[in-house]
Amino acid sequence: MKKSIFLLLGFTFIAGSLFAKETEAFPYLMPEEKPDRPLSAAVERNYDYLSNRPAQNELFTQFKYTELKGFDYNDGDGTVTRRDPSKVIFANGKYYVWYTFRNTGHKAIGMARAKEATDVIPSADWDLADIYYATSKDGFNWEEQGVAVPRPPKPQPGWRSVTTTDILVWEGKYYLYYQAFMEASGTRGDFCPVAVSWADSPDGPWTAANKIVIPNGAPGEWDQHSIHDPYPLVHDGKIYLYYKSDFDTRPDKKPTKVRMQGLAIAEHPLGPFKKHPLNPVINSGHETTLFPFKEGVAAIVQRDGMEHHTIQYAEDWVNFEIAAITELLPIAAGPYIADAFTDTRDGRGITWGLSHFTNAAGDWSRNHSILVRFDCDLSQDIHDDQLKEHYIKFSPEFHYSQGLSSQQLERIQNENKVLQESARGGGT
Amino acid sequence: MKKSIFLLLGFTFIAGSLFAKETEAFPYLMPEEKPDRPLSAAVERNYDYLSNRPAQNELFTQFKYTELKGFDYNDGDGTVTRRDPSKVIFANGKYYVWYTFRNTGHKAIGMARAKEATDVIPSADWDLADIYYATSKDGFNWEEQGVAVPRPPKPQPGWRSVTTTDILVWEGKYYLYYQAFMEASGTRGDFCPVAVSWADSPDGPWTAANKIVIPNGAPGEWDQHSIHDPYPLVHDGKIYLYYKSDFDTRPDKKPTKVRMQGLAIAEHPLGPFKKHPLNPVINSGHETTLFPFKEGVAAIVQRDGMEHHTIQYAEDWVNFEIAAITELLPIAAGPYIADAFTDTRDGRGITWGLSHFTNAAGDWSRNHSILVRFDCDLSQDIHDDQLKEHYIKFSPEFHYSQGLSSQQLERIQNENKVLQESARGGGT
Repeated sequence: MKKSIFLLLGFTFIAGSLFAKETEAFPYLMPEEKPDRPLSAAVERNYDYLSNRPAQNELFTQFKYTELKGFDYNDGDGTVTRRDPSKVIFANGKYYVWYTFRNTGHKAIGMARAKEATDVIPSADWDLADIYYATSKDGFNWEEQGVAVPRPPKPQPGWRSVTTTDILVWEGKYYLYYQAFMEASGTRGDFCPVAVSWADSPDGPWTAANKIVIPNGAPGEWDQHSIHDPYPLVHDGKIYLYYKSDFDTRPDKKPTKVRMQGLAIAEHPLGPFKKHPLNPVINSGHETTLFPFKEGVAAIVQRDGMEHHTIQYAEDWVNFEIAAITELLPIAAGPYIADAFTDTRDGRGITWGLSHFTNAAGDWSRNHSILVRFDCDLSQDIHDDQLKEHYIKFSPEFHYSQGLSSQQLERIQNENKVLQESARGGGT
Repeated sequence: MKKSIFLLLGFTFIAGSLFAKETEAFPYLMPEEKPDRPLSAAVERNYDYLSNRPAQNELFTQFKYTELKGFDYNDGDGTVTRRDPSKVIFANGKYYVWYTFRNTGHKAIGMARAKEATDVIPSADWDLADIYYATSKDGFNWEEQGVAVPRPPKPQPGWRSVTTTDILVWEGKYYLYYQAFMEASGTRGDFCPVAVSWADSPDGPWTAANKIVIPNGAPGEWDQHSIHDPYPLVHDGKIYLYYKSDFDTRPDKKPTKVRMQGLAIAEHPLGPFKKHPLNPVINSGHETTLFPFKEGVAAIVQRDGMEHHTIQYAEDWVNFEIAAITELLPIAAGPYIADAFTDTRDGRGITWGLSHFTNAAGDWSRNHSILVRFDCDLSQDIHDDQLKEHYIKFSPEFHYSQGLSSQQLERIQNENKVLQESARGGGT
C-alpha cells in the first residue's frame, strides 16, 4: 500500500514535469546559458555564437571610412594606383604601411587584353607594379617614402610585377612577403607564387631572398595556380601565413572560379613553409585579413563565397566558425594589430587599418585603386556603442541607385502581361 | 611464404592509401559532393549549404529598389505615412497590397513622448493608423483605393491603432490579420495582440471578428508583450502564421531588447491558433517575411539579431538554417507570392514585392515612412546573373558617408598620443 502510493506520487511528479516541459513557453528573459529544454535549430544556434546579442559580441562591428591625405593619383587619370595595403605597424614613433604602387604612364588595359600588354603597358591594375611604403603620425595623413621592393631583373621571381605585400616582424628583422609575377596578369589567369625580402629596419634597405618561399601547389591541387595575399602572423612560436587561392575554374559557371584561403606554417621567415593538411581553412573572402583574438585568430571575410560579409573565429587557428555577420566590410584590409607578432595568448583585436577601393574612378576608362582608412570595434579594449549598432539605415536614394536594368524591366513587363492574360482567361 | 607476401602487399597498399590521404591536397576542381577526406570546419560547412557557390544558390540574391508612383505624402512633411505592406496578391486582374496608413495632420512625436500623445497626436509613426489598400496593374504604378479596416470604436481591439497587416486567402475568403493597439505605442513599450477581419472580396467590405485571434503570451513568456507582424501562409492543410515578438528587455544593455520570430498554427483562419512548442523558430530579423520554397519555407531575415542579413530555410517549416548571407535586404517586405496559399509542396519562390523606408524624410522633424518596390531572384523560375552577383561595389563617396563621429576622432587622437609617448619612452 505504502509502496503503491509512493509509486503513484512518483508517477504524478514525473508526469507533471513532462507536462510542464511540453507546455512551458520560452522565457521572456533569455537565459544567459543554453537552457535544458527543447529548442528550435535557430535558438540552439544562437547560443553557439560568442554572444547571443550582436551589440555584446566583441567580433561584431560596423565599419566607418575616411579619405586619406597625402597621396597623389595624377588627377585620378588611371595611370597611378595604390592598392592592397599591408598590415599597419608602429615603429620609430610612426605608423608604416606597404602597398602595391603602379605609376605606369599608361592606364591598365585589362586582364582580358593581357596579350597586348608590353614592358610599359600594364594588363591588370596591379601589373608592372612595385612595392612602395608610407608613414604617418596619426593614421590619416600619410607621407609616401618611396619604393621598398622594386621589381627585380628578369628572370627573378617578380620581374613582371611585385604586389599585394604584407609585413612580418621576427626577431628584430622585417620581412615583406609579396606576390611575385613572372607574366602579365591575364596571360593564363592571375598566376603567381610568393617571394620575400628582408631588412633590419622598416625603412630598408630590403634584400630579396631571391627565391619562391610559398610555391604553387602541384598540378591538380587547389592552389596550383595562385598564392595570393600572403598574410603572416606569429602564433605558437611559428609563422602562421594565411593566403588566398583561386580554383575550381569552370567556364560553364558564373563566376567561373571559387576563392578560399589556406594556411602555411614555418619556423623561420625564409621557410620552409608547410601547407596545412586541412587547407583550405576559410571557405570565402577575396583577400586575407586576420588578427589574433583571445586565444585564437579572427578573420574579416568579404566579397566572395557563401560566407562573405562575416567575421570568423578559429580558436585553434585552423577551424573557422562564423562569429558575426555584418556589412560594408573593408576590402583588402590591412589593420593595425599591436600584437600581430608577439605570440600573444590573448589577442586584443583591432580598431582601424587601411583598405582599398578599386572603383575610385567611377568609370573604366580611368580605372584605378586608392587607399582608404577604416575604423571598427573588433577590439576587447574599446566599447563603441555606435560601432556596435546593428541597424544602419541607408537612404532611399542610395537604395534607388541599386536599380533595375532594362532587361530586368522587360522581364517584369512580360511576367505582368502573362498574369493579366491568364486572369482574362486568355493564356499564352 | 605466399601468405606473407600477400600480407606485405596488403600492408603496403594500406600504408600507401593512408600516406596518400595524409598528403593529398584539396583538389583544384571542387568535388560536387562532400569528399570522404579530412576537411576544415569551413570547407565541411560549405558543403552543408543548398549550393557551395553563391551564384548557383537559389536562395542567394541581390536586391534592387524602385520608387513607387501613385502615393501622395503631403510633400513629405511627416503627417502622412505608409508602411509595413502586406504580401502582394493578384486578384481580379490586378495586384493588391494592404498597409499601415497614418494621415494625422500632426507629426508623430515619438514613442519616448507617448504620454503627450492625444486622440489626434500620434506617438509612434504607426500610432493612430488605419489599414488602407492599393491596387496596381504593373507593380510600379499604384492607385490607393482607400480604407480597408479602420480603427474600431473603443474598447474593441485596435481602437487606438490598427497596423502591420497581412493577407490570407482561404477557401475563397480573404482575411486581414493586424496588430490591434489599445494604447499609444510607447506607453509601456510596443504592446499589442493580433486581431483579424474578413471579406468575400479583396475590395471588402471587411467584417471585424471583434476578438483577439493571437493572444500575447502569459506573464514570463517570451511573447508576453507583443505579437507583431502576423504573417499567414498555408501549409499542410493548415494556416501557418509567423509573428515577431520583442523580449529580453534589459535596461543595462544596448539595444535593450531582443527580437525573434514565432509560429502559430490553426485549422481555421479565426483560430484557435496554437503556438509552436519550439518557439521562437527564427532567432533574428525585425519583421516577418517568408515564402514557400521547394518543400519548405524560406525567410528574409534583416536588421536585428545575430543572423541578420540572411536568407534562411526550414524544410520542416520550423527549424531554420542559414541558406545565404546577403546585403541591402528589404525592410518589412511583403512579397508577391503566387503560391502562398496553394499548400504547395514545391514552392517556386519570389522575384518582387513591396517594402518600406522609415527614413524617408532624412530628418526627424518630418519623419515618416514610404512604400518602395524591391526586386530579387529568390525564385526557381528565373535565373538572373545580375541578381546573383555576390560582389557589388559601392562608391567611395557612399563609404565616406559612413564617417567617424567627433567622439570617435577624439578617442583615436588620444590613442595615437599614448602610442607616440610610449615610443618616446614617455608613458602616460
